[in-house]
Amino acid sequence: MRKQISSVQNPYIKELFLLKEKSRTRKRTQTFIIEGLREISLALNGGYTIKTLLVDMSILNEAALNNLLESAPFEIEVIEITSKVHQKLATRTTTEGILAVANSKNLLLETIEFKSENPLILVAEAPEKPGNIGALLRTADAVGIDAVFIANPKTDLYNPNIIRSSVGCLFTTTIATGTTSEIISFLKERNINIYGAALTASVAYQTIDFKKSAAIVVGTEATGLTNEWLSNTTKNIIIPMRGAIDSMNVSVSAAIILFEAVRQRNC
Amino acid sequence: MRKQISSVQNPYIKELFLLKEKSRTRKRTQTFIIEGLREISLALNGGYTIKTLLVDMSILNEAALNNLLESAPFEIEVIEITSKVHQKLATRTTTEGILAVANSKNLLLETIEFKSENPLILVAEAPEKPGNIGALLRTADAVGIDAVFIANPKTDLYNPNIIRSSVGCLFTTTIATGTTSEIISFLKERNINIYGAALTASVAYQTIDFKKSAAIVVGTEATGLTNEWLSNTTKNIIIPMRGAIDSMNVSVSAAIILFEAVRQRNC
Repeated sequence: MRKQISSVQNPYIKELFLLKEKSRTRKRTQTFIIEGLREISLALNGGYTIKTLLVDMSILNEAALNNLLESAPFEIEVIEITSKVHQKLATRTTTEGILAVANSKNLLLETIEFKSENPLILVAEAPEKPGNIGALLRTADAVGIDAVFIANPKTDLYNPNIIRSSVGCLFTTTIATGTTSEIISFLKERNINIYGAALTASVAYQTIDFKKSAAIVVGTEATGLTNEWLSNTTKNIIIPMRGAIDSMNVSVSAAIILFEAVRQRNC
Repeated sequence: MRKQISSVQNPYIKELFLLKEKSRTRKRTQTFIIEGLREISLALNGGYTIKTLLVDMSILNEAALNNLLESAPFEIEVIEITSKVHQKLATRTTTEGILAVANSKNLLLETIEFKSENPLILVAEAPEKPGNIGALLRTADAVGIDAVFIANPKTDLYNPNIIRSSVGCLFTTTIATGTTSEIISFLKERNINIYGAALTASVAYQTIDFKKSAAIVVGTEATGLTNEWLSNTTKNIIIPMRGAIDSMNVSVSAAIILFEAVRQRNC
């Protein structure tokens, strides 16, 4: 018989609600909430430890739950919750009736090791909007990137909106966070070429030899890269634009450069 | 002395509020609201007729207003509004104290003419999210596209969130809407190559000769392109992905293909 919780006033449910809402609570407890079968499954594949599943069996399919439990390399506690409790904890409107409480990873730079001699890396400086971070992670997954580094993060990566907008790519990609200085040192020590995407640069991105190691660095849409990055790159590169506005979404810019790198590497 | 409105209960302000909120009202009156100096200026450049400006002079700079009025090829009525009225009509949190009431364009397919023998066109089928449509328009502007066609539109293009997320590229790009059948006929009559982006396609996008005419067609993230499109293309193309998930934002996918087209054309 599974444990059951039917009250939104239950102290554990109140704690989980804070976990959903508050970055502070996620940091203090080093745990976070994952919503959706696919996302939970990707987190398990990505080596995340899941402590508890909360399931609304009025929505969730029993076979899907069993598949998930069998795929996990460890025992997971399952708690049945009512639809009312589920609605309190879920962030999506269309949902699958399953939530997981998972342990955060530390995302430390020093744990990163590259399999390849010429790694392809994406660095995002101080990205803020969950939707942009999610789209960057989707692109990173699509190009089979070696790592994504978030410099001076402004947003907790375990924010539910990042998990959602990354469609789970948060869990499939090697990610580390650090200060800009730490990441620059890390890259320089390993002789990795650094390319800063900048509207003021004069070198067109497609002229770069991306078959060599490359860390592609993108800044925020509002202010671009800081001088600390711009003055520490191998080259600063630009995506030549021919429109009235010269402005693209940051995840779009990153994708254009990353796919050009992959195109060259496949030639 | 300029006309002044200080009450949010003023019938004209109530009408403008509906214009901001309701697609139905925009369609009935064939007018819409533009917010922000840059956006209004881009709309003037794009040939839009602006009937009225509403200005909050506690925020707006008089010189900026005069510059805008001088740049217009016609007289524009200016109405001063109070901050309270401005807040009721504005959709942005940070704003410049200026709103315009503009006439919609019909965006008819039959009015489109191409200067180039080998136009580059983006077709988006039934896009829904204003953010995605905005990002598509920003990319279209950046590549200097010949036209964007929206097939079976689900969202009124003069939605304030599209104007905002396109950062005004809605006004700088040649746009037309139509049914999928109409757009397919239009392209075929002009012998324009049609390339449908599809996860099920076997031809990699970078193998296409984009120096020839090309209409790149993207579907929705949820369901992709309809069979009507897939069965009427010159070729269906895929962006090869090597990740765990095979999913990218639709505006990212469109940008990767469009920038490859531009790269080839500049070679």
